[in-house]
Amino acid sequence: QTHEKGFIITPMDSRYRCWESLMVIMVAYSAWVCPFEIAFMRSNPNTTLYITDNVVDIFFAADIFLTFFVAYIDATTQLLVRDRRKIAIRYLSTWFIMDVASTIPFDLLALLLTGKHQVGVSYSVLGMLRFWRLRRVKQFFTRLEKDMRFSYFWVRCARLLFVTLLTVHCAGCLYYLLADRYPHQGDTWLRTMNPNYKETSLVIRYIAALYWSITTMTTVGYGDLHAVNTLEMVFIIFYMLFNLGLTAYIIGNMTNLVVEGTRRTMEFRNSIEAASNFVCRNHLPPRLKDQILAYMCLRFRAESLNQQELIEQLPKTICKSIRHHLFLPTVEKVYLFKGVTREILLLLVADMKAEYIPPREDVIMQNESPDELYIIVSGEVEMLESEMENEQTVWTFKSGDMIGEVGAFCCRPQSYTYRTKTLSQLLKIRTSNLIEAMKTRQEDNIIMIKNFLQHH
Amino acid sequence: QTHEKGFIITPMDSRYRCWESLMVIMVAYSAWVCPFEIAFMRSNPNTTLYITDNVVDIFFAADIFLTFFVAYIDATTQLLVRDRRKIAIRYLSTWFIMDVASTIPFDLLALLLTGKHQVGVSYSVLGMLRFWRLRRVKQFFTRLEKDMRFSYFWVRCARLLFVTLLTVHCAGCLYYLLADRYPHQGDTWLRTMNPNYKETSLVIRYIAALYWSITTMTTVGYGDLHAVNTLEMVFIIFYMLFNLGLTAYIIGNMTNLVVEGTRRTMEFRNSIEAASNFVCRNHLPPRLKDQILAYMCLRFRAESLNQQELIEQLPKTICKSIRHHLFLPTVEKVYLFKGVTREILLLLVADMKAEYIPPREDVIMQNESPDELYIIVSGEVEMLESEMENEQTVWTFKSGDMIGEVGAFCCRPQSYTYRTKTLSQLLKIRTSNLIEAMKTRQEDNIIMIKNFLQHH
Amino acid sequence: QTHEKGFIITPMDSRYRCWESLMVIMVAYSAWVCPFEIAFMRSNPNTTLYITDNVVDIFFAADIFLTFFVAYIDATTQLLVRDRRKIAIRYLSTWFIMDVASTIPFDLLALLLTGKHQVGVSYSVLGMLRFWRLRRVKQFFTRLEKDMRFSYFWVRCARLLFVTLLTVHCAGCLYYLLADRYPHQGDTWLRTMNPNYKETSLVIRYIAALYWSITTMTTVGYGDLHAVNTLEMVFIIFYMLFNLGLTAYIIGNMTNLVVEGTRRTMEFRNSIEAASNFVCRNHLPPRLKDQILAYMCLRFRAESLNQQELIEQLPKTICKSIRHHLFLPTVEKVYLFKGVTREILLLLVADMKAEYIPPREDVIMQNESPDELYIIVSGEVEMLESEMENEQTVWTFKSGDMIGEVGAFCCRPQSYTYRTKTLSQLLKIRTSNLIEAMKTRQEDNIIMIKNFLQHH
Amino acid sequence: QTHEKGFIITPMDSRYRCWESLMVIMVAYSAWVCPFEIAFMRSNPNTTLYITDNVVDIFFAADIFLTFFVAYIDATTQLLVRDRRKIAIRYLSTWFIMDVASTIPFDLLALLLTGKHQVGVSYSVLGMLRFWRLRRVKQFFTRLEKDMRFSYFWVRCARLLFVTLLTVHCAGCLYYLLADRYPHQGDTWLRTMNPNYKETSLVIRYIAALYWSITTMTTVGYGDLHAVNTLEMVFIIFYMLFNLGLTAYIIGNMTNLVVEGTRRTMEFRNSIEAASNFVCRNHLPPRLKDQILAYMCLRFRAESLNQQELIEQLPKTICKSIRHHLFLPTVEKVYLFKGVTREILLLLVADMKAEYIPPREDVIMQNESPDELYIIVSGEVEMLESEMENEQTVWTFKSGDMIGEVGAFCCRPQSYTYRTKTLSQLLKIRTSNLIEAMKTRQEDNIIMIKNFLQHH
Repeated sequence: QTHEKGFIITPMDSRYRCWESLMVIMVAYSAWVCPFEIAFMRSNPNTTLYITDNVVDIFFAADIFLTFFVAYIDATTQLLVRDRRKIAIRYLSTWFIMDVASTIPFDLLALLLTGKHQVGVSYSVLGMLRFWRLRRVKQFFTRLEKDMRFSYFWVRCARLLFVTLLTVHCAGCLYYLLADRYPHQGDTWLRTMNPNYKETSLVIRYIAALYWSITTMTTVGYGDLHAVNTLEMVFIIFYMLFNLGLTAYIIGNMTNLVVEGTRRTMEFRNSIEAASNFVCRNHLPPRLKDQILAYMCLRFRAESLNQQELIEQLPKTICKSIRHHLFLPTVEKVYLFKGVTREILLLLVADMKAEYIPPREDVIMQNESPDELYIIVSGEVEMLESEMENEQTVWTFKSGDMIGEVGAFCCRPQSYTYRTKTLSQLLKIRTSNLIEAMKTRQEDNIIMIKNFLQHH
Repeated sequence: QTHEKGFIITPMDSRYRCWESLMVIMVAYSAWVCPFEIAFMRSNPNTTLYITDNVVDIFFAADIFLTFFVAYIDATTQLLVRDRRKIAIRYLSTWFIMDVASTIPFDLLALLLTGKHQVGVSYSVLGMLRFWRLRRVKQFFTRLEKDMRFSYFWVRCARLLFVTLLTVHCAGCLYYLLADRYPHQGDTWLRTMNPNYKETSLVIRYIAALYWSITTMTTVGYGDLHAVNTLEMVFIIFYMLFNLGLTAYIIGNMTNLVVEGTRRTMEFRNSIEAASNFVCRNHLPPRLKDQILAYMCLRFRAESLNQQELIEQLPKTICKSIRHHLFLPTVEKVYLFKGVTREILLLLVADMKAEYIPPREDVIMQNESPDELYIIVSGEVEMLESEMENEQTVWTFKSGDMIGEVGAFCCRPQSYTYRTKTLSQLLKIRTSNLIEAMKTRQEDNIIMIKNFLQHH
Repeated sequence: QTHEKGFIITPMDSRYRCWESLMVIMVAYSAWVCPFEIAFMRSNPNTTLYITDNVVDIFFAADIFLTFFVAYIDATTQLLVRDRRKIAIRYLSTWFIMDVASTIPFDLLALLLTGKHQVGVSYSVLGMLRFWRLRRVKQFFTRLEKDMRFSYFWVRCARLLFVTLLTVHCAGCLYYLLADRYPHQGDTWLRTMNPNYKETSLVIRYIAALYWSITTMTTVGYGDLHAVNTLEMVFIIFYMLFNLGLTAYIIGNMTNLVVEGTRRTMEFRNSIEAASNFVCRNHLPPRLKDQILAYMCLRFRAESLNQQELIEQLPKTICKSIRHHLFLPTVEKVYLFKGVTREILLLLVADMKAEYIPPREDVIMQNESPDELYIIVSGEVEMLESEMENEQTVWTFKSGDMIGEVGAFCCRPQSYTYRTKTLSQLLKIRTSNLIEAMKTRQEDNIIMIKNFLQHH
Repeated sequence: QTHEKGFIITPMDSRYRCWESLMVIMVAYSAWVCPFEIAFMRSNPNTTLYITDNVVDIFFAADIFLTFFVAYIDATTQLLVRDRRKIAIRYLSTWFIMDVASTIPFDLLALLLTGKHQVGVSYSVLGMLRFWRLRRVKQFFTRLEKDMRFSYFWVRCARLLFVTLLTVHCAGCLYYLLADRYPHQGDTWLRTMNPNYKETSLVIRYIAALYWSITTMTTVGYGDLHAVNTLEMVFIIFYMLFNLGLTAYIIGNMTNLVVEGTRRTMEFRNSIEAASNFVCRNHLPPRLKDQILAYMCLRFRAESLNQQELIEQLPKTICKSIRHHLFLPTVEKVYLFKGVTREILLLLVADMKAEYIPPREDVIMQNESPDELYIIVSGEVEMLESEMENEQTVWTFKSGDMIGEVGAFCCRPQSYTYRTKTLSQLLKIRTSNLIEAMKTRQEDNIIMIKNFLQHH
C-alpha cells in the first residue's frame, strides 16, 4: 500500500522537524511585525524590516513547495502515505490556496504594478492574510503538548502567554492606527495623552499603545487612557468582548492545570484520611496503625505498585515479553530452578506477579496454609520463629533467595513467619501453578526435587 | 394510545423546525429592539420599527394558534401524543397565558383607546413582558447543545455571547433612559460627557451607552463615564451584582469546556507517562519499549478499540445484529466455512471479538497453547519460524485468511509465531467455541474437516 | 440509652424548625442593622431601631434558654440524645459562652451604668460580637443544601449572594465611618465627593458608600470615589485582599455548579458521539443505526434504566421488599401462576429483573435458545413469524401476558421473534430459576403445568 | 546499606523540624525586608535592620553547615541514607552553590573592600539572590499540605496569600524605587500624587506604594495612581501580565478547593435524588420509602461503611491483623465459641465482615434460607414472630449475642424475623464457612455442638 517514488520526506525526520520549528519562528516573527509595520511604519517605512519580510516570504514559498514531498499518516489506516500524487491531491484540496494567498507579497506586487511604494489600507487587509499562518503555531503547540519531554503545565502556559501577548500587541497597534488616522483634529486618545505625540520617539508611542492595551485586557482600566471618540468606543467594545472570552479561557485553562496538578496530593490526603479515621474509630493498636499508614504512604510514593495494572492493560503478547524480561533472570538464579529447562521457567514466569512490600511487614505468617511462595528480587526478608509472644530472628534472606517453598513442597502450614526488613520486591508464585508446572516434564520435576532436597 | 384527529404537526417535522427557527430569530429581534425603542425612540418614534414590531406580533399570534396543533412527547411514556384535546389542555395549563400576555400589543391598544400615540412608562413595563419570549431562545440553544451536528464548544460560546450582548444592550439602554429622564438638570452622566448630547446623532448616543455598559460589565471601569447621581448609583449597584454572577457563570462555563476539551490529551499524557516510567524503571529493552509506546499511542489515536465496550453497553439483540452485520461477510469467505450452514456461522459469530493489533506485534507465539484462532479482516500477518534466535518469514497472510487453526484442530501447541506487518483487524474465535459449534450439526462438522484437510 | 425527662424538643419538630427559621431572619436583620447603626446612626440614634434591636436580643436570650431543651443526634451512635443533663453539658462546653456574649446588650448596660446614651468605639466593638450569630445562617444554608425540596443551584447562589451583599454592606458602612470620624478636615473621600455631605440625606450617603463598596468589590473601580488619605488606603488594601478571595470563591462555586449542571448533557453527547462514530466507521445499515441511537437516547431520557443499579446498592432486605412490592402484583395476575402458593412466587420474584425496552426492538429472536422468559408489565409486544425475509405479525401481547414460556417449558428454541411495539417494561425470569422454583413444591409444579397446558 | 558514622541528624527528628520552621520564618523575614530596604532605606539605612540581616545570614550559614549532617531518603529504595559522604556529594551536586551564593553578605564584603557603606544597584541585584531561599517556603508548604493535622483548604489558602502578599509587596517596593530614582524631575507617579513626597513619613510612602500595587493586582485600577512615564508603563505591563497569571492561578486553586469541598454534598444529593425519584416512580409504600432514604442518609453520615473497601485495599497480612484485633474479642465472648481453640476462631474471623445496619431494618427475614448468621457487636436487635400481618417481639438481643444460628445448625429456614432497634454493628458469618471451620478439628466441633445444645 505504500509506494516509494523518488524523493519523499517523512514527517518524523529530524531535519524536517527542524525546518518546521524554523517555520514556526518565522510565523511568530511575521505575526508580530506585520501589525507593527501597518500601524507605526506607514509614514517612514524601514528598509531592513521590508527586506526581512520578503526573505520570510521566500522561506514560506519554499515550505509550500516542500509540502508536496512530505509523506502523511492516513487517518483511517494509520499508515504512512508516501505516494507523491496522493500527497499533492491532499494538499491541493485542503490548505494550499490559503497558504499561497498568505504568502503572495501584495505590496511588492503593488510596487511593481503601480511603481509607488506607499500603498493604501486595502493592501494592509491583504497583509492580514498572513495571520492564516498562525495555524502552524497552533499545530506546533498541540504537538508540544503531546511531547513527554516537556511539562504540560509550561507548554500550556507558553501557549496562553503567546495568545495573550499577540492579542495585546495587535490591539495596541490597531488602537494606535485608529488614533493616528482619525480625520478630525484634537480628539483622539493620543492627542489627549500628548498633543505633540508625533514628535516623540517610536518606542514611547508603542509602549503607550501597549500600556493601554494591557490595562484594558487585564480589566485594570486606570482610566488615564480611554476612548475619546465614537470610533475608539466601537473598537474598545469589540476588544473588551474578546477579552472577556480570553480571560475566561485563561482562567479555565489554569483551573484545569491546577486540578490536574493537585490531583495526586488530594488522592493522597483522601486515602490517608480514610485510613487514619478507620484506625481511630476502631482503636487499633499503634503497631497496626503505623503499618497501615506506612503502607498508604508507600503506595503513593513508590508508584511502582501500579505496575501490575499497567501490565494488564497491554496486549497478552507484550505482557509475556515483559514478564520474561523482568522475571526470568531472577528466576534462573534461584537454587530450585538450577538445571531446569527454559520451557518450564517460561510457563512459571507467565503467572508470576511482582509486589513491593514496605519494611516490617509480614509476607508469610506462621501456621498459614502454603498457598504462595516468593522469590526475593531486592531487599531483605527475615525468618522469625515466634513462640509465646517471643519472636526470634532465625535467618535473613537476601536477593535471589526463595521463601515459603518448604511449606509448598511438604504440603504443611508454614512453620516460620517471614517479615521484610527493608522495602522488598518479591515475586509471588502460587503453589498450585508451581505444582502444575512441575508435572509438565518428568525430568524437570526430578531436578527440582533433587535441588530442594540438596538445599535443605 | 395515540389518536390522529385531523391536522396535527409532529414536532420533528422539518417545516415546523424551520418555523421554530424563524420564531427564534423574531424573539431575538424583539428582545433587541424593544429596550432600544423604549430608551432612544420615545421622543421621535420610527414608523418602520413600529410596523415591524406589529408584524412580529402577528407572527407570534400565529405561533400561539399553531401550538394547539403540535403533538408532544409525553414525559412518562416517551410516546408522541397526537390527541388535539390533550395538546390543548397541556398548553392552556402551562405557557398559554404568558404567551398571550407577551403578544398583546399594549401600545396599539392604548392608541385605539386613548387616540394618543405617546404613552407612559406603564406601557413600557407591559412591553417588558416580551422578554418572556426569551424562553424560546433558551429552548433553542438547549436543543442545539444536544444536536451532534454542531460543536458543543461553539454552541455554548454562542449562548454565552447572546446572554452577554443582551445584558450589555439592555443595561446600556436603561442607563441612557435613566439619564434622559432625570428631572434635575445638569447632573447626569450624559450631560457630564457632553452637555449638548441631545443634538448628537442617535448612533453616537447609543454607542456611548453601550461603551459604558461593556466597560462596567467587563470590570474595566475606565471611569470616564461613571454615576453622577444617586439614581444612577442604585442602578449601577444592581448591574454590578448581576455582572458578578454573569462573569462567574461565563468563567465557569469556559472552565468546563476547557476541562472537557483537554481531557483526552490529559489521559493520553497520563497513560504514556505511566508506560514510559514503567519502561525506564525496569530497564526494558528498546524493542519492548517501542512496542509498549506504540500500543499506547494506537489506543488513543484509533478509537476503534473502544468498539467492544460500546457493543457491550447495547442490549443483547442489537449486539447480535451488529455482529452479524460486521463479521458474517468476512467469516463466510473463509475457506474453512465454505458450504457450512448459516445457522452454525451465526452461532460462531455471536462469540467473536474484533481486535485491532498495531504493526510488528505477536498475535500468536510459537509453542503457545492453541486457545484462540483468528480471522484476518484487514492488514497483513506474517508467519515466522524462529529457531535459535533466528526468525524467518515463512508466509504472509492477508485479508480473509485464517491463522492458528492448525493448532486448534490438531490440539497441539502452535508451531509458528504470527506477527502483524501492518495495523490489522482480527476476529478472535475461542477454540472451545469453535469445537462446540462444530458438534451442533454432524454435516457441518464433516464439511469443515474436509475443508481443513483439503487446504493443508 | 435514651431517657425522656420532662419537656424535650426534638430538632426535627416542625414548630422548632419554624423557630429556627425565625432566628435566622433575626440574625440576618441584626447583621444588617448593626454596622449601619454604628456607621450612620451615631449622631442621631433612631428610637425605633433601638427598640427593635433589644426585642431581637430578647428573642436570642429565649433561644439560648430553649437550646437546653433541644435533643441532639450523637455523632458516633447516630441516636437522638434526649437526656437533659447531657444536652446542657454539650451546650455549655461548646457554643454557650459565645452565644451569651453575643446577646448581652452592652449599650443598654452602659446606659444603665453611666447614664449616658452616646457611647464610644469600645461598645461598637462589643456590638461586633453579634456577628458570631452568623454561624446560624451558615448552618441554615448547609441544611438547605441537603434539602431535596430546593434546587442546589439556587440555594448555593442565595448563599453566595448573602455573603456578597453582607460584605458590600459592611465595607460600605466601615468606609463611611472612617471618613466621618477622620480628624483632619478636608481630605476624606466623603468631602472630596461632596464638601457638604453632612447636609445630604441619610439615604444618599448610604447609597454612595454602597456604590463605592460594590465598585471596588467587583473590581470595576471607576475611580470617582477613591482613597484620599493613608487610613483609607490601609482599609482598601485589606478590603481588596478579602475581595480577591471572595471573587475566587464565587467563581469557584459557579464553576462547580456549571460542571454539575452540564454533566448530563456532556455524558449524553459523549455516548451519542461514540455510538454514531461506531456506526459510521462500520457502515452499519440505517435500521441498526436508528436502533442504536434510539437506545442511547432512551437511556438518557428515561433514567428508569438505572433502577437496577440503585437496587443493588441497597441492603438485601430492602431489595427484597422492593421486589415484592413492585413485581408480585404483576406476577400474580399471569395465567401461569394462577393458584400457585405465595411462597414460590416470592422465590421467583427475588431473582427477577425489570427492563425497559425501546420501541421496535427484538426481545426474543427466532431460534434463540430459551434461556429467558418475560412478563410484560406495560407496553405492547408483537409476536412475529419470519420466513424467508418475510415477517408477519401473528399476535400482539399486552400488559400481564407472558412471552417465551413455550420454549422454556418444551426446552426447544424459540419459534417466534418477539418485538416491542411501544416502550415496554418487561420482567425477565431466567428459565433455570423458574425450573428450580417449580421443583421446590410438587403441588405448585402440577398447577403450573396444568395452567400451561390449559392455556395452549 | 545504611552506615552510621558519627553525628547524623534524621530529617524526621523533632528538633530538626523546629530548626526548619525557624529557617522558614527567617526566609519569610528576609524576603520581606530585602526589597523594602533596597527601595525605601537607600538614603538613610537603618542600623537595627542591618544587624538583623547579618544575624539572619549567620543562621543561614549555620544551616548550610548543618545540611551536611542531615540524612536523606533515597528516591529509588525509599531507605534513609546516613552515610556522611553520600550526603555531602548529594548536597554539593544540587543546591549547595545557590545556597552559598544567596547567603554571602555582598554589601558587608563591599564595605570591607571599599570602606564605603552606600553601594550601587549591582549589589542590590546580588541581594536579590536571597529570593532563592524561597524554595524553602515552597517545600514547607508542600509538606504542610501532606500533613493531616492541618486542613488542606487553609494551608492552600495560606500559601496563596503568602504568594499574593509577597508579589504585592515586591511590586510596591519596585514601583517606588522606579519613581524615586527617575532622573527627570516632575513626572513620576510619586510627584503626581504629592510633589513633596520626600518630606512625608516612610509609612505613608510605603502604604501608598502598597495601595497602588494591590489596586493594580486585584484589577480594581481606580486610576488615582497610574503610570506617568514610559519606564513606569513598561514596569506595569510586566506586572499586569504576571498578575493575569497569578489571578488565574488563585481562581483555579479556589475552584479546585470548592469542588473538593462540595463533592460529598453533591454525591449525597445525587444519591438521595436517585433514590427518591425511584421511590416516586414506582409508588413504593411510605415504610419502604423511609427505609430507603434512611439507609441512603446513613451511608453518608456514617462513613464507617466504607471500612470494608479500605480493608480490601490493604495487603493480606495487615488485613488479617486488623480482623484479629477487631473481631476476635467479640467472637471469643459468644457462648457458641466458649472453649473453642484459638486456631479455629482465627480461621472464622478471617472471613467475617462487619456491617452497620440502620435502625428498624430486617437483618434476617422469616422463612429465609439460613445462609448467614450474625454476631451483634453493638446495638440491639429484636426477634419478631410474625403471623398473619401480626408482629410480636419475642426477645431483644444485645451486644455479644448471636442470631440466626438455630437455622444454620438445624439446616432449616429461619423461624423468626430479626430487626434492628438501634444502629447496630453486626459481624456476618457465612454458614458454609462456619461448617467448614467446625470440620477442621473434631474436638472443637463437639464443644460447639455442646455449647449450642446447652444454650437452647
